[in-house]
Amino acid sequence: MALVVQKYGGTSVGTPERIRAVARRVAAARRRGDDLVVVVSAMGDTTDDLLALAEQVTGRSAPGREHPRELDMLLTAGERISMALVAMAIREEGEEALSFTGSQAAIITDGTHTAARIVEVRADRVREELARGRVVIVAGFQGVSRDREITTLGRGGSDTSAVALAAALRADRCEIYTDVDGVFTADPRRVPGARLVPEVSHAEMIELAAAGAQVMHPRAVEIGARHGVDIRVLSSFREEGEKARGTLITRNPRRMEELALTGITSARGHAKLLLRGLPAGMSTPTTVLARLAGAGVPVDMIAEHPEGDGRIGLQVTTWEDALPRAREVMDELMRDPGGTGWEVREELARVALVGSGMHGRPGVYARAFRALLDHQVEVHAVSTSAISITLLVPAEREDDALRALHSVFEMELVGERVENAPEAP
Amino acid sequence: MALVVQKYGGTSVGTPERIRAVARRVAAARRRGDDLVVVVSAMGDTTDDLLALAEQVTGRSAPGREHPRELDMLLTAGERISMALVAMAIREEGEEALSFTGSQAAIITDGTHTAARIVEVRADRVREELARGRVVIVAGFQGVSRDREITTLGRGGSDTSAVALAAALRADRCEIYTDVDGVFTADPRRVPGARLVPEVSHAEMIELAAAGAQVMHPRAVEIGARHGVDIRVLSSFREEGEKARGTLITRNPRRMEELALTGITSARGHAKLLLRGLPAGMSTPTTVLARLAGAGVPVDMIAEHPEGDGRIGLQVTTWEDALPRAREVMDELMRDPGGTGWEVREELARVALVGSGMHGRPGVYARAFRALLDHQVEVHAVSTSAISITLLVPAEREDDALRALHSVFEMELVGERVENAPEAP
Repeated sequence: MALVVQKYGGTSVGTPERIRAVARRVAAARRRGDDLVVVVSAMGDTTDDLLALAEQVTGRSAPGREHPRELDMLLTAGERISMALVAMAIREEGEEALSFTGSQAAIITDGTHTAARIVEVRADRVREELARGRVVIVAGFQGVSRDREITTLGRGGSDTSAVALAAALRADRCEIYTDVDGVFTADPRRVPGARLVPEVSHAEMIELAAAGAQVMHPRAVEIGARHGVDIRVLSSFREEGEKARGTLITRNPRRMEELALTGITSARGHAKLLLRGLPAGMSTPTTVLARLAGAGVPVDMIAEHPEGDGRIGLQVTTWEDALPRAREVMDELMRDPGGTGWEVREELARVALVGSGMHGRPGVYARAFRALLDHQVEVHAVSTSAISITLLVPAEREDDALRALHSVFEMELVGERVENAPEAP
Repeated sequence: MALVVQKYGGTSVGTPERIRAVARRVAAARRRGDDLVVVVSAMGDTTDDLLALAEQVTGRSAPGREHPRELDMLLTAGERISMALVAMAIREEGEEALSFTGSQAAIITDGTHTAARIVEVRADRVREELARGRVVIVAGFQGVSRDREITTLGRGGSDTSAVALAAALRADRCEIYTDVDGVFTADPRRVPGARLVPEVSHAEMIELAAAGAQVMHPRAVEIGARHGVDIRVLSSFREEGEKARGTLITRNPRRMEELALTGITSARGHAKLLLRGLPAGMSTPTTVLARLAGAGVPVDMIAEHPEGDGRIGLQVTTWEDALPRAREVMDELMRDPGGTGWEVREELARVALVGSGMHGRPGVYARAFRALLDHQVEVHAVSTSAISITLLVPAEREDDALRALHSVFEMELVGERVENAPEAP
């Protein structure tokens, strides 16, 4: 008998029919003898609908900035609805079940409304009810602070709830049900021939997620890495029993090849800043980064080059939505510490090639560049880590870059072909 | 500086615009120096929409019977949404505000899901926040049991929450905002010339509410009576400052006349059962009532008459929706203890004339009968209490009966004319 935490996302509980499908899956697992904790997101567009109501009532485009506590109170209604309905549906399948809010499940967070961090999961009531043979449904995305204030976890919140519960309960398995079959070597809608990755390490998954793979939030994977929780990502749209193993995120993935790449992902909305004629010196990059950070401009990559005459140039990549603030900072920097000019290159995509197998193998780097050169994709910036290579390319060449890289590393990518991969609804 | 509890019903918070209107009213009261606790219902049709979802998920027409705990969990999402939005809107008006669930406000109930009774209101956090100068919004209709289970109060729940909070906080005033101007001498949509009642006693209001006046639930008025809470019912659709005093429910209403009637109300859906040829004897009515109660048939009035030959007849009034069960019980009663036959008269309306002034004055009774006779309205049953006369009439003559009674008691009815009474939306 295993203890299993299952998490179902918004599309997986998006309609009464989908909720009944989830209930059948849970009941089948229960009848096989597993103890089950089921973490749910809000149904479909509920969270967006609630947010729209708050915008109408307040006349503000981001009501959470002005009313963080009340926005959390509002949004937590979403999972409350889905968890009660899922509990009813499981009971209709003949299994005992009951639902708990984040507060009742004692998911304790700090007091940062709209973006709280989990500090502890006590889950005493969850344990008690499991011991009574009941399926326990827990609201994802929400918790309670030590001051008894209701909080939400922000982006990736429900995944984070599930993995944190799995860690606290020392669950045997943590299953994240979503609307895709798992993690792919590249986005199958964009790269024909993209394949399912059977196993990845936590570190690889964090890189993939940070680089745009939307299957799982990196924050949840980090908790899994820290507490040694194996996480399986799989589709709730596959029928029970259908061959669908999904992707296992685990500490030591089994690999056939020594050089193994796990995936290529991408995201748009990036931009590059070029600052020219800054004074050379150790303190200049620090000053630039501090000023940008002070204005709330996030920085992704940074590179420095000498220009001669005691001057340097700096290239900084950021996100397009930060450009208005970035432009103001660059104007200031031209006056102090002084510079000769700045430029912005917008509409860039960030493409990342991820895999622990590339560590210490400069050949990968060279082959990636060669592939892009062969397809005449201009590279605007590049950065490497132990397990990834990140490249900025023009957004309109994003798909060409993905396909070129997928094609040149075809042999090293660890994926498996998936038959009849269902489209997300 | 007064402590005021205000309650806003579903139509009063039905849209973002209505919520902003509520916020303006609350902020104006706050600026006049009052401390405010605001109790809210779910927005408009939210509760019905959630109930429909539960019906779809479970395939049951009354999901609360099978899943009472989870239905409570589901429905409490409704007030959570409205209370957070109301708090945001009040903050937008420049006043400090925060919302509490029934659980956070420590509205402690018994464990009867879907129809819990309040056993205690601790409201410690409410008091703390009031002391900090904040407006406190509290979810109506919901509480928490001593086992930390979320409960709902059933019918009239939000009114009940408001009056119970007013009692616990020893509030100076309890204001129930609704979509009508207050309590009328009769339904103004049916009786031209119906007038607003400025003051009624709790006992009169309980009679009026039980007899069909939907302005306030009798249960909430009972709590007000027990704890001496004065309750003012008034319209949230009147602008601030507009002359609109509503109706004050109070222990000792001020009256101009000694014989004062407060109102005439009515409700359809009643029926009369006539059982003939039952054995005479003390135990027969008890047996009949016990069998009806055992089958879940509620009884309103009962009357016995002798038939001779050691036999009696019984007339019992009930509600039409209980007739299928009532018919089965009557068939059984004909076999044991034995009877000669039964009849049912359906489509009756229950008309009640209420007022403490009628106590000990048989003239009222006679004038009521005479008025109905003059208008050829047949009376199928009659019952009196210290402060009311209740009559069953054919449903199709309901309006005629209301108007006849209103006309004959015109001088004694305590109401005031209301200018431009706005229609409920």
